[in-house]
Amino acid sequence: MADLEAFFHEDSFPETCTESENKAKEFVKYHEDTGIPVALVTSGGTKVPLEGNTVRYIDNFSIGTRGAVSAEFFLQHGYAVIFLYRCRSLEPFTRHLQNLHLLDILEVNSNEHDRNSSVVVKSDYCPQVLNVLKTYQDVKKKRQLLMLEFNTLGEYLYLLKACSIALSPLGNRALLYLAAAVSDFYIPKDKMPEHKIQSSDGPLQLSLEVVPKMLTPLVMEWVPNAFVISFKLETDPSLLISKSKQALDRYHHQVVIGNLLDTRKREVVSVTKDQENWIRLTDKELSLGVEIESKIVSEIVQKHRTFCSHD
Amino acid sequence: MADLEAFFHEDSFPETCTESENKAKEFVKYHEDTGIPVALVTSGGTKVPLEGNTVRYIDNFSIGTRGAVSAEFFLQHGYAVIFLYRCRSLEPFTRHLQNLHLLDILEVNSNEHDRNSSVVVKSDYCPQVLNVLKTYQDVKKKRQLLMLEFNTLGEYLYLLKACSIALSPLGNRALLYLAAAVSDFYIPKDKMPEHKIQSSDGPLQLSLEVVPKMLTPLVMEWVPNAFVISFKLETDPSLLISKSKQALDRYHHQVVIGNLLDTRKREVVSVTKDQENWIRLTDKELSLGVEIESKIVSEIVQKHRTFCSHD
Repeated sequence: MADLEAFFHEDSFPETCTESENKAKEFVKYHEDTGIPVALVTSGGTKVPLEGNTVRYIDNFSIGTRGAVSAEFFLQHGYAVIFLYRCRSLEPFTRHLQNLHLLDILEVNSNEHDRNSSVVVKSDYCPQVLNVLKTYQDVKKKRQLLMLEFNTLGEYLYLLKACSIALSPLGNRALLYLAAAVSDFYIPKDKMPEHKIQSSDGPLQLSLEVVPKMLTPLVMEWVPNAFVISFKLETDPSLLISKSKQALDRYHHQVVIGNLLDTRKREVVSVTKDQENWIRLTDKELSLGVEIESKIVSEIVQKHRTFCSHD
Repeated sequence: MADLEAFFHEDSFPETCTESENKAKEFVKYHEDTGIPVALVTSGGTKVPLEGNTVRYIDNFSIGTRGAVSAEFFLQHGYAVIFLYRCRSLEPFTRHLQNLHLLDILEVNSNEHDRNSSVVVKSDYCPQVLNVLKTYQDVKKKRQLLMLEFNTLGEYLYLLKACSIALSPLGNRALLYLAAAVSDFYIPKDKMPEHKIQSSDGPLQLSLEVVPKMLTPLVMEWVPNAFVISFKLETDPSLLISKSKQALDRYHHQVVIGNLLDTRKREVVSVTKDQENWIRLTDKELSLGVEIESKIVSEIVQKHRTFCSHD
């Protein structure tokens, strides 16, 4: 924990971070009155700079599918959602249009009765766009969704702390769904070269330190009464359950969702103090395009209700 | 060079790479007849995997502004452009709408005379969208632009080689503008751990090898008669010119554009065998939103014409 504080002090944060912090406070304040539960969904990978004047960084594979899809299902279940996501990773709603090239779906509509031409979505794409647009506008009207961006590991940790503290007045109505793929390693500022590493110097030796775990202060201090779900991604199946249990034992939060890189879109395991529950899609569900996040979120919402009723 | 061949053999490439290779061949074949010059513009960073089942990779800061903007100016100068870009980095034309949230600029237009509702761009955004859309449609109609995506360093090198060889029949009409920020270091497959590196094992030691330089075979073998421009990005001003000259001496291509991380949007230096020419934006140009790529591309097009006329 002392480590994590040192991490906050050694980094400097862009102004957008404090703007985002204020938006989170306002959003939570608004939903203190609506009475609906509020989920913080984190999503996407984190960048870890390798140089002071950063040209290179370590990143991870995440484009944020898990987080973006889950956010939509939390909204469907009536939650307000703070979506804390890595800049340029997938976003709820727009992700459905991701495979379309914006300029290919638009056309100029020159109206003979009107001197101004307008731009319309080509009729072929209308049903798809219309569907997403209506849901998005509905969510926006209800002020159900707040989107906050981060880039680096430092910005992520700063905003995670800020959002957690903002959520704490909601007590057990707050839910944290930590789906972002946070880097485990970083190079401390004082050990970073100032300038771009030169390839003419030959092979590169990098020494990275372990990122301090933020789940301890998050659960113990920042938002002690919330319902907290973390994620464990592994590539080795033999480690999945043991690593998930280890995380629960260490941080004393409520759920770990374990998943393997290769199979993460069709099965995950939900691990709590008392049970391990595999959540799977059948072949038929897969072929119909059912998203496993619909089942994960349903299970989490159910567990959150039980958690609130026992409190 | 032997190194680079080994690199190609040790990597495996997705099917999309051969599809892209075929598209490049067709595109060049089409433009052999149109007679216009063809530019290959590379753009964005390259991912370098750190693990066999990749969770982590080394990346660099580039979002591909230089490449995307330059591609537009080459099109304006009448070039056909193969835009070889990192997946999810900036694209020509759509980049102008990047700051807009797609679902915020659209609205449902329910027509009382028509049972089907349509989706239109809100009138506030129409002029901006219309402008980009018309240019894009014009370029598309003339088959002036081919966009090809890559992700990893391996995919980039594969496609760079494929596109270069495809362009070689055009002789000096082909121009290569290598603005992608290619990683200098990588971990060879046989030295990569199979599974995700565990943070519980403590600090991480990484040993990266220098990526074989592809400019030597590119200039000497793949596309020997083309006009080739490479980029040199540094953070230390004292190294910029010497590094740029070194590159020219080593690879025997035509131009190095040198730029510093901090000032790259307002000044670059164009280095050739005979001269160094600083290209700068005045404060007034900066405030008017002039993009430095307009000047870089003008200069390059001029040099390319001279190059062709001397051949």
